[in-house]
Amino acid sequence: MLPGFLTRAVAVLLGREGRSLHLKAAGAATAVLAVVMLAGSWAVVGAEEGARGANLTSYPKALWWSIETATTVGYGDFFPVTPWGRVVGAVVMVVGITTYGMVTAALATWFVGREQQRRHHLAHGAHELGEEAVRALHERFDRLERLLDGK
Amino acid sequence: MLPGFLTRAVAVLLGREGRSLHLKAAGAATAVLAVVMLAGSWAVVGAEEGARGANLTSYPKALWWSIETATTVGYGDFFPVTPWGRVVGAVVMVVGITTYGMVTAALATWFVGREQQRRHHLAHGAHELGEEAVRALHERFDRLERLLDGK
Amino acid sequence: MLPGFLTRAVAVLLGREGRSLHLKAAGAATAVLAVVMLAGSWAVVGAEEGARGANLTSYPKALWWSIETATTVGYGDFFPVTPWGRVVGAVVMVVGITTYGMVTAALATWFVGREQQRRHHLAHGAHELGEEAVRALHERFDRLERLLDGK
Amino acid sequence: MLPGFLTRAVAVLLGREGRSLHLKAAGAATAVLAVVMLAGSWAVVGAEEGARGANLTSYPKALWWSIETATTVGYGDFFPVTPWGRVVGAVVMVVGITTYGMVTAALATWFVGREQQRRHHLAHGAHELGEEAVRALHERFDRLERLLDGK
Repeated sequence: MLPGFLTRAVAVLLGREGRSLHLKAAGAATAVLAVVMLAGSWAVVGAEEGARGANLTSYPKALWWSIETATTVGYGDFFPVTPWGRVVGAVVMVVGITTYGMVTAALATWFVGREQQRRHHLAHGAHELGEEAVRALHERFDRLERLLDGK
Repeated sequence: MLPGFLTRAVAVLLGREGRSLHLKAAGAATAVLAVVMLAGSWAVVGAEEGARGANLTSYPKALWWSIETATTVGYGDFFPVTPWGRVVGAVVMVVGITTYGMVTAALATWFVGREQQRRHHLAHGAHELGEEAVRALHERFDRLERLLDGK
Repeated sequence: MLPGFLTRAVAVLLGREGRSLHLKAAGAATAVLAVVMLAGSWAVVGAEEGARGANLTSYPKALWWSIETATTVGYGDFFPVTPWGRVVGAVVMVVGITTYGMVTAALATWFVGREQQRRHHLAHGAHELGEEAVRALHERFDRLERLLDGK
Repeated sequence: MLPGFLTRAVAVLLGREGRSLHLKAAGAATAVLAVVMLAGSWAVVGAEEGARGANLTSYPKALWWSIETATTVGYGDFFPVTPWGRVVGAVVMVVGITTYGMVTAALATWFVGREQQRRHHLAHGAHELGEEAVRALHERFDRLERLLDGK
C-alpha cells in the first residue's frame, strides 16, 4: 500500500516533462527521503525489538528519531543500538544529507538562472542585431545591383 | 505585536525592488527563520507543559533549544517529548536547514556572478566589435556607391 | 591490504580522463571519506583504549560512531574522551562536511550545466546563423563581380 | 598576541589581489572561524565558570566543544548552561555553518567555472570567426573597388 502510494507520488513529481532537471531532482529526492524516513521508522523498530538498552520501541518514537536523524540534529534521546538498526540509521542519514544537498543545489541553480536571464536578454539582443545588420547589408547589395543594372 | 514587527522586517527586506532574487530569498529565509525560532520557542513550552520527563520548561531554555535545533547541532540537553512539541521541532529543523541552504545558494550565486563578469565584459566587447564591423561595411558600400555614381 | 584496495578504488574513480572535474572531485572526496571513516574507526579505538569513561571500546561501535560523526548527526551515544581520540574525531568531522559540500557543489554544477545547455544550443544556433549569413554575403559579392565583369 | 597573529593571517589570505572573490571569501571565512573557535573556547570557560551543572570547565574541553559545535555534530558531552555561554555557542554555530556554506559555494563556483571554460573557448572561437569573416568581406570590397577603378 505504502510503496504503491509513494511510487505514484514520485511519478507525479517526475511526470511533468516541462520541468527543469534541478526541480525534478529536488522533488524526487524529497519524495525518496519521505519514503526512506517512513520505511526506516518501521524497519528500525523491527531491528531494535528486544535488544538490551533499546530505546526505539514504538513507531511514533521511531518517526521522531527518523526526523532528527535525516536533519542530522541527533539529540541523542533516541538512537539504534543493534547492527541492523544502525544500518537503517546510516541510510536515513545519507539520504537526508543528499536530499538537502539537492535542495541547496536546486536553489543555487534557480538563483544563478535568474541572474543569467539579464545576460541572456543581452545576448538575445545581440543576436537580433546580427539578423538586422545582415538584412541591412543585403539591402545595400540590392541597391548596388540596381545601380549597376540601371546603368 | 511580534508578527507586526516581523511582517515589517520582512517587508523592508523584500521591499527593495532593485535587489537580486538570491539576496531577497536569503534575506526573507533568514527573517522567516527568526520568526519560526521565536514562535517555536513559545509554542514548544506550551506543548511540553506538564508532560512527564519534559525538559523544555521555560522560555530562555526553549530559545536556546531552538538555536541548537535550527543549526542542527542538537546537543541533547533539551528536546521535546510530546507529539506537538516534536512537530514544532520538525518545523524548526526544516526551516533552519532550508535557510542555510538558501544562504549557501545565494553565496554561490554571488561568487558565480562575480566570476562571470569577466566573461560578460568579453561578450560585451564582442558585441561592440560587431556593431563597429557592420558600420565599417556600410561605409564600404557608401564608397562603392559613390564610385559607381561618379562614373 | 586496506590502503592497497582503496588506492585502487581511488585510481578507478580518478582514472577516467573524460570525466568532468566536479564528478572526479565528488568521487575522490567520497573515496577519501570512506578511507578516513575506516581508518578513523580503527585509530579512535586505539586512542581511547584504557581511558577512564571511554565508550569507544570496540571496532563495530567505532564504525557506527564514525558514520554519525561524518554525517554530523552526533547522537552522543559514543564520543571520544582522550585528546588523540578527539583529534581523530575532528578529522572525521571536517572530511565528512567537506565531502558533503563537494557533493552539493557537484550537484549544483550538474544542474547549472543542464540549464545552460539550452542557452548553449541557442548560442550555437546564432553561430551557425553567422556562418550562413557570411556565406550569403559572399554570394552577393560573387553576383556583383559577375555583373561587373559581364558588362 | 592572538588577535595580532590572526589579523596577519587574514591579511595574508586577503592580500593576494589576483585571487578570485570566492577563494578569498572561503579563505577569510575559514580564518574567521579559527578565530571564533579559539576565542569562543576561551570565552565559554569564563562564562560557565562556577555555574551549577557546568561541564565546560577547562580550555582543552572547551576547544573540543567548539569543534563539535562549529561542525554541528553536537554529541552532548559538553554544552553551555549559562546565558552568556549559550550566546558564545550560538556565535560559534552560526559562524561554523556560514563558513561551510562559503566553502561549498566556493567549490561550486570552481566547478562551474571549469565546466564553462569549454563553452568560453567555443565563444572565443566564434568571436575569432567573426573577425575573420569581417576581414574576408573587406577583401571582397577591395576587389570590387579595383574592378570598378580598373574599368
